[in-house]
Amino acid sequence: MTADQPLAIALVHHPVRDRNGALITAAVTNLDLHDLARSAKTFGVERFYVVTPVAEQQRLVTRLLDHWVVGHGASYNPDRAAALELAAVVDSLDQALADWRQLTSEDALPLLTGAQRCDGISFSMGRQMLKQRPILLTLGTGSGLAEELFENEWPVLEPIAGVAGYNHLPVRAAAAIMLDRIKGTGKEL
Amino acid sequence: MTADQPLAIALVHHPVRDRNGALITAAVTNLDLHDLARSAKTFGVERFYVVTPVAEQQRLVTRLLDHWVVGHGASYNPDRAAALELAAVVDSLDQALADWRQLTSEDALPLLTGAQRCDGISFSMGRQMLKQRPILLTLGTGSGLAEELFENEWPVLEPIAGVAGYNHLPVRAAAAIMLDRIKGTGKEL
Repeated sequence: MTADQPLAIALVHHPVRDRNGALITAAVTNLDLHDLARSAKTFGVERFYVVTPVAEQQRLVTRLLDHWVVGHGASYNPDRAAALELAAVVDSLDQALADWRQLTSEDALPLLTGAQRCDGISFSMGRQMLKQRPILLTLGTGSGLAEELFENEWPVLEPIAGVAGYNHLPVRAAAAIMLDRIKGTGKEL
Repeated sequence: MTADQPLAIALVHHPVRDRNGALITAAVTNLDLHDLARSAKTFGVERFYVVTPVAEQQRLVTRLLDHWVVGHGASYNPDRAAALELAAVVDSLDQALADWRQLTSEDALPLLTGAQRCDGISFSMGRQMLKQRPILLTLGTGSGLAEELFENEWPVLEPIAGVAGYNHLPVRAAAAIMLDRIKGTGKEL
């Protein structure tokens, strides 16, 4: 079995949509960072980009990371340090991609996600893609990634299908399931 | 393929352990309720028991559910109403089980979970079990379900294995992955 290429995730706060489809910048929330970092660490993700162009929010994230990765929190709870040290704050998805390509290779590609997309590749194809090139799994906050990001001809992952047509997973749950489906051993199924 | 029996989840706030293994009652958090309800709704879970013996916390949960299920929140965000209407607050896991058995059958059984357990059945066996009897998937807050709950000879589910030995998923992420593994169509893998 071919080994996987490196995997990173990006949590995008701009550009995203609100519930009415309007373009917004979502606020960074403390818990998203903790939850996504811990899920990322569990599944061997190498980098977790927190994408926001808002300087004040960037400072907030930096303070939070300092506390848990090098400050008092690191000795209080080393498991959180191990997860949050994957995180880095960046201005834009382009900047995240540029950094990820520098860390891996120019082949690295975003893999976009969206609960409303019907043009996505299957999770099985996502797993195959990860054997061929580094991937930046890209999740939107608010009500999902803005339309303009889908105009870059980057691949899109199919939505997580539940059993009853309800399609409103929190980004924290969606990220966990996606990482399990793409990186989990799957031996249980 | 045999149809599944009904599935419920219980989020236990007592008895659970803290990071040092001491027996505690964890506080109910708003976000756990939202996230687990939305994951539950996605995967066809029929009931979501919020287990706490603390009267004040029970009132808090009841107020929160009232807001989102019948109050202002229900018209503001019907998708949250559809998820949170699965929730019910109960004093103990015994009470959750009694209610779940009354709703389904006396065969209904808790399926316990714990990141540190090495005596669990596989997810594949969990899927099989759900074809035979109603299940109450039982998750602990804090640092997990207290030892005494494992003395009832109820089945235990294996932990979610990541790729690098890191074993500290948030309960919100663990619940999402477990529901996907037990109820997800799995066609993607």
